[in-house]
Amino acid sequence: MREKLRLGVLASGSGTDLQSIIDACAGGKINCIVACVISDRKNAHCLERARAHGIPAHFVDPKCGDGSRKQKDAHEKEIHELLGEHGVKLVVGAGYMRILSPRFVEAWNGSIINIHPSVLPAFGGADGQGDAIEYGVRIAGCTTHFMDESVDGGPVILQAAVKVKRGDDRASLAERILQVEHQILPRTIDLYEQGRLQIEGRKVQIAPKDDSWLSRYPVIEGVLYPEDY
Amino acid sequence: MREKLRLGVLASGSGTDLQSIIDACAGGKINCIVACVISDRKNAHCLERARAHGIPAHFVDPKCGDGSRKQKDAHEKEIHELLGEHGVKLVVGAGYMRILSPRFVEAWNGSIINIHPSVLPAFGGADGQGDAIEYGVRIAGCTTHFMDESVDGGPVILQAAVKVKRGDDRASLAERILQVEHQILPRTIDLYEQGRLQIEGRKVQIAPKDDSWLSRYPVIEGVLYPEDY
Repeated sequence: MREKLRLGVLASGSGTDLQSIIDACAGGKINCIVACVISDRKNAHCLERARAHGIPAHFVDPKCGDGSRKQKDAHEKEIHELLGEHGVKLVVGAGYMRILSPRFVEAWNGSIINIHPSVLPAFGGADGQGDAIEYGVRIAGCTTHFMDESVDGGPVILQAAVKVKRGDDRASLAERILQVEHQILPRTIDLYEQGRLQIEGRKVQIAPKDDSWLSRYPVIEGVLYPEDY
Repeated sequence: MREKLRLGVLASGSGTDLQSIIDACAGGKINCIVACVISDRKNAHCLERARAHGIPAHFVDPKCGDGSRKQKDAHEKEIHELLGEHGVKLVVGAGYMRILSPRFVEAWNGSIINIHPSVLPAFGGADGQGDAIEYGVRIAGCTTHFMDESVDGGPVILQAAVKVKRGDDRASLAERILQVEHQILPRTIDLYEQGRLQIEGRKVQIAPKDDSWLSRYPVIEGVLYPEDY
């Protein structure tokens, strides 16, 4: 058995994406361990979640002691050092609401992924679900991608699509998208851990392997799954 | 029975989308008649298709007799007059590769729709399928929308998503998207004919009715359908 891949998860919110990773690790679905969780919000529930599972959880304050805004470089340096101290090999953005600098992303080049709640390149930015509702699309979804210096523009790894239903608002759509986020995010980490992701230019090639990954997840009706991968 | 809705189809290519409309009319799936087909290309196969079904087919030359480029206004005036002569009530862009002027679109405001081979707002423009392949997305598809003065930016009516599979190129993806185009385009016309589409701002509300439209079309495996509509 390969050594478990050490993940560092960056999150700002309640941490349901984080939970899907923790569950996938605990259930043996992926050969990984969450080495640490880092948040830019002191009271973010993701930190509590991590601690409840015995995972080191760090709040890295984006502000200085006197309340002034910390230099982005200084803030990211703290994060970078923490990731190093925990022996992290793959950084996972899981609802981290702060844009990472090109310098930080470059330092983790090819070893930093993100999940975004839209079928990119549509609706990048801070509110993929709300923007989809505003636009009036009938198909929404989520995307995992390698992070690069662009915002939400890095090479796509997996995507899944869900229907926007009559009467949906941002909350009901976001909830439906979250359900598939919790599937494609661990699956993406799985593919990475297996060494099956190859970045070629701005595209990701996924090496084939017949392992019917979906058998390990509950099937949600009415979802378009990337089962080929 | 309501009088059949008279459709004017604009097309530039082989006319497979047109064929899906003709078939839906002939099969009684939609209460419509294709009153005329207009193309900007003299030898476009869509014109032959129309004639083979006894549908008036018009080539409207975008160039003058001397080979110089005709004024856009003059070209569109000819099209507009032909549509009027044929008593057209709904104009359908079905692979028409010329951008219509705001003046033309305004004249048909709310009575002109288009089909585009991407899940808009991603990959608007002339090559939705090729751009999707280039970007490296895992989910592609098609969109029907009301046309407005923007290019591919009008209110969305229906969308369907298909998977991009390992090894897909532009041709294989375009073929897979076409299959669903041939379902959502007639269905969109159907909804229009039933008076169930309501434009509200930049969104389209679709009035509910339980008529299981998909029972009238072959089900294609692995497609995310807008069956709610």
